[in-house]
Amino acid sequence: MSPTRGLVIVNTGNGKGKTTAALGLMLRAWGNGLKVVMLQFVKSPGRQTGEHKAVEKIGIEIITVGGGFVFDAKDTGRHRQLAVQQWQTAKEKISSGDYDMVVLDELTYPLQFGWISIDELLEILKARPAKLHVVITGRNAPQPLMDFADTVVEITDVKHHFRQGVKSQRGIEL
Amino acid sequence: MSPTRGLVIVNTGNGKGKTTAALGLMLRAWGNGLKVVMLQFVKSPGRQTGEHKAVEKIGIEIITVGGGFVFDAKDTGRHRQLAVQQWQTAKEKISSGDYDMVVLDELTYPLQFGWISIDELLEILKARPAKLHVVITGRNAPQPLMDFADTVVEITDVKHHFRQGVKSQRGIEL
Repeated sequence: MSPTRGLVIVNTGNGKGKTTAALGLMLRAWGNGLKVVMLQFVKSPGRQTGEHKAVEKIGIEIITVGGGFVFDAKDTGRHRQLAVQQWQTAKEKISSGDYDMVVLDELTYPLQFGWISIDELLEILKARPAKLHVVITGRNAPQPLMDFADTVVEITDVKHHFRQGVKSQRGIEL
Repeated sequence: MSPTRGLVIVNTGNGKGKTTAALGLMLRAWGNGLKVVMLQFVKSPGRQTGEHKAVEKIGIEIITVGGGFVFDAKDTGRHRQLAVQQWQTAKEKISSGDYDMVVLDELTYPLQFGWISIDELLEILKARPAKLHVVITGRNAPQPLMDFADTVVEITDVKHHFRQGVKSQRGIEL
């Protein structure tokens, strides 16, 4: 195994910080002059969140997908179509050789729903440019993905302010 | 309890992503126009890491402390002195009213070593400006801090590329 090479990093677990942790990786990579793109798989493009503002402000490319949050909307054709379309874009970005880091935010949801094939994902990851880092976030990462990954980080909420009656706050979650 | 107010967020656990997750919070806050400062308690100022470059590049204030990593250097007077000095600066920043978010990176180490008093920390947090978010990172966060915090996130390495013979990589850890 080569000492430095592109890594596959998975941020999973029940915590709300999985995307946040990916943002931190992106910021550090960007600070080192790496070229980064983030593709979001379930967030709404209509919602101009702090992460979009920040990422756009520093010039990191971010590609969102429509449809809002998909948690139990397993059967919605539109969500599926958008996720599949986003996956096409992701594959092009991964194989293009134009990036040092590709972030697939909340990819585990379409994987879980079977909209994107885990086998195809692993093929794409194996065939990627040698130096490319791929970061994948979302709950319930499938076991074959965790087996394949170089790094798996589990992010767990021990305690969360939502459970204590504090609302989402601009600058923290939004 | 007020629905929106400053939060105390603790990123703890054995994972290497605690600072990374804090960087993500900082980036999102910055994207929303919040004023952020990060004070590091154990990293070396000599090491110009990706996080320093990124944070400086986007104009977030970052204040480092000397001495390199303190893991079992419990008895070094210089580390203690630097940490105590950093804590003085942190207290001024927290009470100044000039910030929306103060990040105390790896504060748990000097807390554990008894260099900074947990009682004093809790007093300072209680007396802070109402809207100020404080983010604290590091292993083994003391129980009274976790009890006081609004949000505690545990970050665990399920699998890490260091354990698989892959070195630290610029853009990922550095």
